[in-house]
Amino acid sequence: MDTKLKEIEIFDSTLRDGAQGEGISFSVQDKLDIVRLLDDLGVKYIEAGNPGSNPKDLEFFEKASRLELKHSKLVAFGSTRRKGITAQQDSNLAALIGAGTEYVAVFGKCWKLHVTEIINTTVEENLNMIYDTCKYLCDNGKRVTFDAEHFFDGYKNDREFALKALQSAVNGGAECLALCDTNGGSFPDEMYDIVSDVRNHFPDVKISIHAHNDRGMAVANSVMAVKAGAVQVQGTYLGYGERCGNANLSTIIPDLTLAGYSCIPEDKLKEVTATARELAEISNTSIKRGEPFIGISAFAHKAGMHADGVLKLPRSFEHVPPETFGNTRRFLMSEISGRGAVLERIRKIDPSIQKNSEETSAILEALKRMEQQGYQYEGADSSLEMLIRRNLGKYKPFFELKNYKIISGRPCENDDCSATATVKVSVDGKDQLMVAEGNGPISAMDRALRRALEVFYPTLRNVRLIDYKVRVMDPKSATAATVRVLITSTDGRNVWTTVGVSGDVVEASRIALAESIEYHLIRKYGVDTDKSTMNE
Amino acid sequence: MDTKLKEIEIFDSTLRDGAQGEGISFSVQDKLDIVRLLDDLGVKYIEAGNPGSNPKDLEFFEKASRLELKHSKLVAFGSTRRKGITAQQDSNLAALIGAGTEYVAVFGKCWKLHVTEIINTTVEENLNMIYDTCKYLCDNGKRVTFDAEHFFDGYKNDREFALKALQSAVNGGAECLALCDTNGGSFPDEMYDIVSDVRNHFPDVKISIHAHNDRGMAVANSVMAVKAGAVQVQGTYLGYGERCGNANLSTIIPDLTLAGYSCIPEDKLKEVTATARELAEISNTSIKRGEPFIGISAFAHKAGMHADGVLKLPRSFEHVPPETFGNTRRFLMSEISGRGAVLERIRKIDPSIQKNSEETSAILEALKRMEQQGYQYEGADSSLEMLIRRNLGKYKPFFELKNYKIISGRPCENDDCSATATVKVSVDGKDQLMVAEGNGPISAMDRALRRALEVFYPTLRNVRLIDYKVRVMDPKSATAATVRVLITSTDGRNVWTTVGVSGDVVEASRIALAESIEYHLIRKYGVDTDKSTMNE
Repeated sequence: MDTKLKEIEIFDSTLRDGAQGEGISFSVQDKLDIVRLLDDLGVKYIEAGNPGSNPKDLEFFEKASRLELKHSKLVAFGSTRRKGITAQQDSNLAALIGAGTEYVAVFGKCWKLHVTEIINTTVEENLNMIYDTCKYLCDNGKRVTFDAEHFFDGYKNDREFALKALQSAVNGGAECLALCDTNGGSFPDEMYDIVSDVRNHFPDVKISIHAHNDRGMAVANSVMAVKAGAVQVQGTYLGYGERCGNANLSTIIPDLTLAGYSCIPEDKLKEVTATARELAEISNTSIKRGEPFIGISAFAHKAGMHADGVLKLPRSFEHVPPETFGNTRRFLMSEISGRGAVLERIRKIDPSIQKNSEETSAILEALKRMEQQGYQYEGADSSLEMLIRRNLGKYKPFFELKNYKIISGRPCENDDCSATATVKVSVDGKDQLMVAEGNGPISAMDRALRRALEVFYPTLRNVRLIDYKVRVMDPKSATAATVRVLITSTDGRNVWTTVGVSGDVVEASRIALAESIEYHLIRKYGVDTDKSTMNE
Repeated sequence: MDTKLKEIEIFDSTLRDGAQGEGISFSVQDKLDIVRLLDDLGVKYIEAGNPGSNPKDLEFFEKASRLELKHSKLVAFGSTRRKGITAQQDSNLAALIGAGTEYVAVFGKCWKLHVTEIINTTVEENLNMIYDTCKYLCDNGKRVTFDAEHFFDGYKNDREFALKALQSAVNGGAECLALCDTNGGSFPDEMYDIVSDVRNHFPDVKISIHAHNDRGMAVANSVMAVKAGAVQVQGTYLGYGERCGNANLSTIIPDLTLAGYSCIPEDKLKEVTATARELAEISNTSIKRGEPFIGISAFAHKAGMHADGVLKLPRSFEHVPPETFGNTRRFLMSEISGRGAVLERIRKIDPSIQKNSEETSAILEALKRMEQQGYQYEGADSSLEMLIRRNLGKYKPFFELKNYKIISGRPCENDDCSATATVKVSVDGKDQLMVAEGNGPISAMDRALRRALEVFYPTLRNVRLIDYKVRVMDPKSATAATVRVLITSTDGRNVWTTVGVSGDVVEASRIALAESIEYHLIRKYGVDTDKSTMNE
């Protein structure tokens, strides 16, 4: 790592503030897996739970204490003591200490409105709550971050009041002040000015920024706070969090790197994308296609002029090389992209092919024919690869689907399985008949096809669908319209997408499914391998 | 509108730059629908296509010229003339003029790298290309925006060069300079400084900002550019666009409003969310749950402490009241639905119903149950009307679908008809069995159901489907996911849309189909008519 770069600490709260997001919930095992993932990436702090409010979190901290972490420190989160009691009497603080982490973060009120209208106490008692809590935790050997809740709203309302709250925390021994834009209502210029002011007030204390995305500003606000002197950024790795979410660290880490700061070890930067995708898998969410740096469209070029420019000189239309953070460039095959982009894809499979080779023309012709049928390969890279492979002879049929029949209807005997599919596949002359039920014709066929082929290719047990999309392409003819189905599959490590088109949604799905399986088998076994070695 | 507010022009490029986004493609009808939507919202400019590069766009502009727009001006987009020819000789410019719009936007190179490495010409010729093009278009009566491509990269590389490009456009008669952060690589502070500098250089020309989101900064950069003096913001309403997308106007319009600017008519602000959801429906995309202002989680409170705070005082955890931009607050643990909007729909059917009537509560309960199943009534008004009617007793079942069975498969005897459906309907105790073939299970069922019912209700011969949309709602479980089907029907005069939800695409389609037929029959015959008068 270039030691001259200013270091910014990354503080991830996916497991605490992120868990407040709608649709997010983690098991203890999920949390342990995510800790390992973030530690591998080199995140400095992982805020992992609130043992006072969630008893499950105590179990987690107990298990987590046995993990051997390479880079990260675990942080337990809690609140300042309740009004009218001592810190010693507060059971939540006891739970916080009980979590056994070296680092703790406690939040307290910095907006007068909350003191008088929400927790109904006096300004003085609020300052005492902050001071007492920080002091008590320090006396118990903890290193304390004070999360200054609603700091920016509080500051805009009454600067002196907000700064006094921070001062109480510092007096109590807090070593880090996390300025929270809890409601997400600040703009980057305000952020810069206010953080600068705090920085000047507390030159010897670590300043951290905790931004929310209610105005779409969380990432920008975090970067501007760093430019104003914050040395730590709190966020969640994929932007999970209450309402519009927290600051997205998978954007902020690359942004700060590009702005000349160091956030994670340099050799880990290329893991930023893979970490995001694994975290999404564990969390059972999907990443927006166009998510900066990590989305599958983040470096996808569609317009012909852009694609041509990138082929000449990548930086003409890319602000950073995609591989810097572990992503890849893609050229979308569409009516507006040209020959150059196709050639680039062909060459990945056979580098000897030239722009004016016969094969190139044949592939372009095939592409045009498929597009006239309604195929579209943007978003379905793997089907494009298969089309190219078939035309180059770098293809081998791993199975034949001889026929399928699906019966569906209502009412049905079994409510979860309204359809029954039978398929007959043939591999090396051996037929295999299989039947499966499913909720709907496509799910039934998917199951039957996979089970039939697993007999020959056990590796397919690791393959599963993770996304299924249907687009009606000529909606004006309604149910008789052409349907395009995109299927995304994974084997746990790789992710690929295939496409099928037909007037019949079942047949379109069959095409995409079969191609998804073929693609996996070609990747796994190549096109030359003897079948007898395959039953691993 | 408060006339003291500074006005910022909104320039939407969903139909042009947005169409470069992966997975986005619009039919001519989609484009016309989107123009109407944006015009209704009060967007000032709608950049709607590139007639030089896409012949389909000429058809669109021809049709669009017959629309009567209330607020918006259409803009056609193109490029500066090619090198080495005159503007008069350039066929793309001829197509641009042929689009027949009063306003045009043309992009030209402002980064020396692109001049010398990508289009391979001289700095002088590049300036001439800009000047000639603007002048030629102005001479042809156009009002010209110059899209300064890669302006920020160009400026950082060579300020004088970048400013000269702008000067050439101004000399040629351009009335607006759109500064493009084409690669999305700028930060808000750079944006502010550079826009301020340009502003000072060209005090009499309209400055516009065109930001891309590759660093997650497009919204922040747009707001900061406005603060630095830009008076127009280019973006796409839902952030569609190449790679990570363009600046998201559905965030920027609320942001600028909250920052004290006026972007759209004040009485339209509450349409911001509905417009987003309609646009997403037309585009067949989904809106991220936590999307600022418009997402369904944007004002969803999960943490108990937050929910309690909001119940005491909404602004304690909300930076703006959700209804300001047409969204609604949700409590994730104790769901409380918004009564007002639903009441309005109920009263259209029965004006006597009050907010605290028993019927209102029953309908809200039913709505909540349906929403939990995955129903959404935004694009399916007719299904909402049917739900309300059922609860008000203003409903009558015109038929019962006793069962259906569909057999589909390949290979099949008849290539156009891969599926056979049988249905049994019952009307007034009389059963009718019917069979039909179709290309796919849904088309077969549609035909069988209609033919069976035509025996009783000949008016159905005039009804046909005109649109059919499938949305997979929980893509994580792939083919076992919940599917929402929207069906739009017409009887030649009226158009209506119904929705069906199920884990099975066939069953979801059946629900929407049946409801579409019921809706027509209720409209045709009312709920009190004697059946004997119906066979007209």
